[in-house]
Amino acid sequence: MELADRLNRLGTETAFKVSEVAAQWASQGHTVYPFHLGDIDLPTPGRIVAAMDRAIADGHTGYCPGAGITPLREAIANDVNTKRGTSYTVDNVTIQPGGKPVITKFLQTVMNPGDEVLFPNPGFPIYESQIEYLGGVGRPYRFVPSQSGFALDLDHLRSQVTARTRAIIYNDLHNPTGADSTEAEREAVAQLALENDLWVLSDEAYFEVRYSGQSKSIASLAGMAERTVILYTFSKRFAMTGWRLGAGITPPPLTDWFSRLNTNNESCTTHFVQYAGLAALQDAEAEIGQIRSTLQARRDAAYAELSTTPGITLTKPETTFYLFPEVSEAMRMVNSGDLADFADRALRETGCSFCTRNHFGRPLSGEDRRYIRLAYSGLSAQAISEGLGRLRNWIGSAS
Amino acid sequence: MELADRLNRLGTETAFKVSEVAAQWASQGHTVYPFHLGDIDLPTPGRIVAAMDRAIADGHTGYCPGAGITPLREAIANDVNTKRGTSYTVDNVTIQPGGKPVITKFLQTVMNPGDEVLFPNPGFPIYESQIEYLGGVGRPYRFVPSQSGFALDLDHLRSQVTARTRAIIYNDLHNPTGADSTEAEREAVAQLALENDLWVLSDEAYFEVRYSGQSKSIASLAGMAERTVILYTFSKRFAMTGWRLGAGITPPPLTDWFSRLNTNNESCTTHFVQYAGLAALQDAEAEIGQIRSTLQARRDAAYAELSTTPGITLTKPETTFYLFPEVSEAMRMVNSGDLADFADRALRETGCSFCTRNHFGRPLSGEDRRYIRLAYSGLSAQAISEGLGRLRNWIGSAS
Repeated sequence: MELADRLNRLGTETAFKVSEVAAQWASQGHTVYPFHLGDIDLPTPGRIVAAMDRAIADGHTGYCPGAGITPLREAIANDVNTKRGTSYTVDNVTIQPGGKPVITKFLQTVMNPGDEVLFPNPGFPIYESQIEYLGGVGRPYRFVPSQSGFALDLDHLRSQVTARTRAIIYNDLHNPTGADSTEAEREAVAQLALENDLWVLSDEAYFEVRYSGQSKSIASLAGMAERTVILYTFSKRFAMTGWRLGAGITPPPLTDWFSRLNTNNESCTTHFVQYAGLAALQDAEAEIGQIRSTLQARRDAAYAELSTTPGITLTKPETTFYLFPEVSEAMRMVNSGDLADFADRALRETGCSFCTRNHFGRPLSGEDRRYIRLAYSGLSAQAISEGLGRLRNWIGSAS
Repeated sequence: MELADRLNRLGTETAFKVSEVAAQWASQGHTVYPFHLGDIDLPTPGRIVAAMDRAIADGHTGYCPGAGITPLREAIANDVNTKRGTSYTVDNVTIQPGGKPVITKFLQTVMNPGDEVLFPNPGFPIYESQIEYLGGVGRPYRFVPSQSGFALDLDHLRSQVTARTRAIIYNDLHNPTGADSTEAEREAVAQLALENDLWVLSDEAYFEVRYSGQSKSIASLAGMAERTVILYTFSKRFAMTGWRLGAGITPPPLTDWFSRLNTNNESCTTHFVQYAGLAALQDAEAEIGQIRSTLQARRDAAYAELSTTPGITLTKPETTFYLFPEVSEAMRMVNSGDLADFADRALRETGCSFCTRNHFGRPLSGEDRRYIRLAYSGLSAQAISEGLGRLRNWIGSAS
């Protein structure tokens, strides 16, 4: 029995492999500090769960429209407008089972086979997987170290545009680096899109995971709303990753197509979970703030250890729940030639499990610095200090 | 801003349009009897909801593996084996957000662009939509009236096979006709698949919605498990349509690809809903039986009215929750030239809202009988009698 050829182009999230290795190590009785997965170990606020139970009691256990329930679509439009200064309505919103489906649906609606799509590298690996799976050509754009962490290499980005370029995927508040764009950088990306008539997928999964300053959406810049799709999700800010609730914020012609794709693929997002989302958006700031301050304490704990570890260099990002330290020198100190070996030995020597730069796209030519990615959202500040303290001792004792 | 060409090939479920028209008519103060949508108005059993709440309290609100939680995958393998006489294990099961995603994932994994796929017509409209959307060529096969309702036109089916045929979609316990295959018919379909080396999607959404006799899966026939994907869902038998919980039952190479597609598209199915599914499968027979006997009473009420309505011909199907009466003569009686007009006038004259044969695929050449489809799962037996009584009076008064 032969399989379809398109499967040869399907990538995945190799981070899940890291989970498996960590689980196996833990099953042998070892302590593991899980810095590998961008999940959150905090409970979902109780009133959100209560709202879902009420929705079930009210009989919302049958199908709902493919685009989602109207009150939630309205509430999301309002939430986006309040936080981003945009002017969306219910006609710009389709409910999705998480943020991730927006990537696939964006590419399905705007990209033809053979079209080129710009995507960040390092970046969330599903971008490249879905571009290529759907027959497009991925064009990676890169980051350079900056005073505040990482900046887009704008000259390189511009050099990647060709006559076949159809879209750019832009992930301000960036996984894995934790970087966020300056005003100038965001405007330069918008300019590029306008000049080359590109569609934009603005992956704003971490929009409200920010410890200082204010997030801003590229969709709010002049001329951008009509060419931008926002990936919107409840996962990160409400600790609702496993609930699978998100939305696509789309210009109207795309809204109809997203809705029709829902009808084809999922029928609808779990009906009563949508009522939980509606409750989440009401009086949410206290809870978002509480989750954020927990995450901030964890960031500070992680930064305190790593910034005093020999051979490790990093800045303290103000967004996301990731750290992306350079470990080139630390690798030399422990005599490790490649990132996979370094991560493997770190797990065995210290219990710290993490992803590396190589889980976020194929390294580009000329890259000579080595990075790892630590997610601090799934461990207490105490476990973070303990685990990264062991990492420091391991590297320190090798110097 | 141009859209992708593939959207020109994307179909939809036009039944949702019927919902909209019915809702509009109801909003003007008219009584509507909703026979159009295959949804269930019964509450989900309380212990299933309680199991979900416990899972949330236990912290199952984060991500789980793309393939789903292991205990549910095991429980589904056991359930399928018990009911179908197969020998599946956890390695044959991926959890999906409903049964519908299995259609898309089946076609993505076995069909190349240009390949031909056989599908039932009339049939669930997403089959043809997804075949064509993914670049395949849909080849409809047809039904003929039989003593017990409808039978496959096997000669016609065989005549549709070409060198390009890659797969057949088979929906025993069939939407919209309510027909189920005889042993001989099922074996003929299996034989066709074996002889022509076809993949089979066995849509078993209604497998346990049966009032007499016993359902049997084509996957249980010799040589078929390795070429068959079963579409498995909790929706119909547990009144869980809006929960979005189902599974693909696949030969092992496909299981890995289904899992990887999950990682790309949805990450995972809502984590705690999977624990609800696990509870649903424990000691489920009483509840399934209760839902079934409620549906049976509704079928009997619907049949009693329709079988005494002049100009309407039907058999009493033993499966699904649909009736598919022929209305050719009734249409002549009320002087209606086409099905859309007949349905529209029936709504305005009687409040009965229903789909027609034309919502289940483009009529094939030579079709001269006219059918409508009534779903009786969303109304009480009393409402069914009342609504269809009005339909009978309307048609009867025209004779």
